[in-house]
Amino acid sequence: MDIAILIYDRFTALDAVGPYEVLSRLPDSTTTFVGETVGPKRTDTGVLALTADASIADVPTPDIVLVPGGPGQSALMGDGPVHEWLRKAHESTTWTTSVCTGSLILAAAGLLQGKRATSHWTALEELGGLGAEATAERVVFDGKIVTAAGVSAGIDMALTLVARIAGDELAQAIQLGIEYDPQPPFQAGSPQKAPTEIVDAVLAYSRFEAASR
Amino acid sequence: MDIAILIYDRFTALDAVGPYEVLSRLPDSTTTFVGETVGPKRTDTGVLALTADASIADVPTPDIVLVPGGPGQSALMGDGPVHEWLRKAHESTTWTTSVCTGSLILAAAGLLQGKRATSHWTALEELGGLGAEATAERVVFDGKIVTAAGVSAGIDMALTLVARIAGDELAQAIQLGIEYDPQPPFQAGSPQKAPTEIVDAVLAYSRFEAASR
Repeated sequence: MDIAILIYDRFTALDAVGPYEVLSRLPDSTTTFVGETVGPKRTDTGVLALTADASIADVPTPDIVLVPGGPGQSALMGDGPVHEWLRKAHESTTWTTSVCTGSLILAAAGLLQGKRATSHWTALEELGGLGAEATAERVVFDGKIVTAAGVSAGIDMALTLVARIAGDELAQAIQLGIEYDPQPPFQAGSPQKAPTEIVDAVLAYSRFEAASR
Repeated sequence: MDIAILIYDRFTALDAVGPYEVLSRLPDSTTTFVGETVGPKRTDTGVLALTADASIADVPTPDIVLVPGGPGQSALMGDGPVHEWLRKAHESTTWTTSVCTGSLILAAAGLLQGKRATSHWTALEELGGLGAEATAERVVFDGKIVTAAGVSAGIDMALTLVARIAGDELAQAIQLGIEYDPQPPFQAGSPQKAPTEIVDAVLAYSRFEAASR
């Protein structure tokens, strides 16, 4: 099973690395970080680079595609090699997946028309505007399309996906291997749970970020 | 505030990237991925490389040090430049931290003598043998030393640390920004919660891995 994780400049590292840590443990699988070009891709903070070991052209028919999000997503909304690769790969994937605003890229490539899908909570409206049925759930399956909510939701998605692919026992073993027994110090991880003033502050910051792209 | 995240060959990506995603959002901070040498470091799976932008010699006095774990930890248990750097840096850090078996490196460098500390659940016995008071908690503070349990625990540690450094509101805003509202599909993230046969399988695998290093 070939797993291709797309990375690009200004993606959010955890969007890709969370699911990678889970999916790469699938037996008989090969995970490849791919980019439009080979080489280091710098994340949204500017202080970290992950290497794309192959180009998208090198991995034309992956079984699983994963598209992370992050501010750099906005540069991948127009037609071009990434959309062409996604559309072509999607014809033969078993699973086409995204984390966070990676779903906006899938939608812009035309893969989410009428599909139930999710994204970072600040991007659900934009996702709906691109033709998807935007859904505020953490992990959304619609046929072979699987989308996760913001950033850390990719871990939950990947564990769910491993269970579908290889059974609950392997998913549980991987969960135990990465000691994923989350104990967040606050209940502030969703706009429903966080205090209103925190939600407003994050929304204001995300609009500022979007405007400054 | 200077934050140095140590990376090395065969570290576990999520150990470093989870806390990075949180700590790098601290205002007035600079996060640097450092290695014994500058350049790409390949993670434990072999399929991903993160770049060390600076050498440890370039960042001698960080305010926060973070040491991730992973199979490559075993190559950093002997005296050498990394231990020297850790000992020297620790003299002036505000926080010296680790995730997963990164605590074994801190312990081998002599920084955890008599200190309460944690590690990946499979490594707690080894941690105790190195002079620490091994503690099966997810995030352990002992003075300025902060250790996290396995892999994904680094996210909980980093949010807790941000709250100490900059207040609960910022920690909550970062938590909401990364939509950290975990919904693992199984309750198998700790040896207490996972089914016995899963615990046994992961233990057997971890012993096999340790023996094959």
